[in-house]
Amino acid sequence: MAKPLLQIALDNLNEKDAYASITQVAEAIDIIEVGTILICAEGKSIVQKLKTTYPNKIILADAKIADAGKILTPMMLDSGADWTTLICCAELATIAGALEVAAERSKDIQIELTGYWDFDQAVAWRGLGVDQVVYHRSRDAQAAGVDWGPADLDKIGRLCELGFKVTVTGGITVDDLKIFAKYPIYIFIAGRSIRDAPNPLAAAEAFQIELARLWK
Amino acid sequence: MAKPLLQIALDNLNEKDAYASITQVAEAIDIIEVGTILICAEGKSIVQKLKTTYPNKIILADAKIADAGKILTPMMLDSGADWTTLICCAELATIAGALEVAAERSKDIQIELTGYWDFDQAVAWRGLGVDQVVYHRSRDAQAAGVDWGPADLDKIGRLCELGFKVTVTGGITVDDLKIFAKYPIYIFIAGRSIRDAPNPLAAAEAFQIELARLWK
Repeated sequence: MAKPLLQIALDNLNEKDAYASITQVAEAIDIIEVGTILICAEGKSIVQKLKTTYPNKIILADAKIADAGKILTPMMLDSGADWTTLICCAELATIAGALEVAAERSKDIQIELTGYWDFDQAVAWRGLGVDQVVYHRSRDAQAAGVDWGPADLDKIGRLCELGFKVTVTGGITVDDLKIFAKYPIYIFIAGRSIRDAPNPLAAAEAFQIELARLWK
Repeated sequence: MAKPLLQIALDNLNEKDAYASITQVAEAIDIIEVGTILICAEGKSIVQKLKTTYPNKIILADAKIADAGKILTPMMLDSGADWTTLICCAELATIAGALEVAAERSKDIQIELTGYWDFDQAVAWRGLGVDQVVYHRSRDAQAAGVDWGPADLDKIGRLCELGFKVTVTGGITVDDLKIFAKYPIYIFIAGRSIRDAPNPLAAAEAFQIELARLWK
């Protein structure tokens, strides 16, 4: 199986902290996520700044678009994002509109599976031509002590079988990676486990080494 | 029944256009909504600017929070919003966290019913103590030619019966208001029907006159 890509989530509260986080680790990262928190704090200009600073990285704007797909999708993509996200409860018309906008730009969207969704929706997304989904153990679920379990793995396996390129996220540590090794995961997102490490670059490199060891 | 409040949605693409929209009509408006589009464009600073300019209006930040309720909710409320929104697919833990943050500040949240949700969720929201929901005919549904119908009214009636203060939105015109006159609607949102009118202040005043006529 192909080695999964490593994405860092910049869920910082402001531009300065985001740059402090990414500057240290960029060389070991494949995808830079402009987190929802950072977009709400700074607006679209932070997407543009990060793409300008890192033109050779994939920039993902985690806008979690719920509506107005034909306005918010071009806003994010034309600010420099290669990909942007839609939230899973968005109507199919919204997702179709976002896909159209992305295709016109040879860019892509992802469906962010935060909160309530089901496999009937997932099948419908595939029918529209959605390629990417983000399987998300929520920050608040983590805070409530909910750990990765068989129910997560079963859903991730079904999403892979449906043909999605699956991103996995939600407080993932290097030690967690082996749990997912039987699946063709496309991307893992790390946030605080890299950003808050004593040596963030070493933490990112440890992810890459473990990804190469497990997916070969 | 109490006269519903009138909210204008500032779904402008930038600060300048937002101010151009609100300056003309503010005196006839009860609630100023900082739209998702405007938040994504400008970040939280636009919430702060609008509250500073209009300290006596209710400022609603339509952030459509899906996760990280304990970070995004205080970000919006401490920037000057009186209320902020969560998206309907958010996990209950996220909504509970947002409610806690809002209560500490004597402010409030709304659940934005854009896309997929059901009444089991709505009952659970009431159980958590959610008071406000936003019944939303999506922009993309409107573009697809879907009109207000009995299914919308049935859902709005059930939400009122559950005890929610219900906001109604989605391309509403003055002529549409009479459809809803049998329900104790808390807020109507108008966006383009005011912003794009030849005389926006007169358009807002026409809404207020019709609201006073229908809900007395």
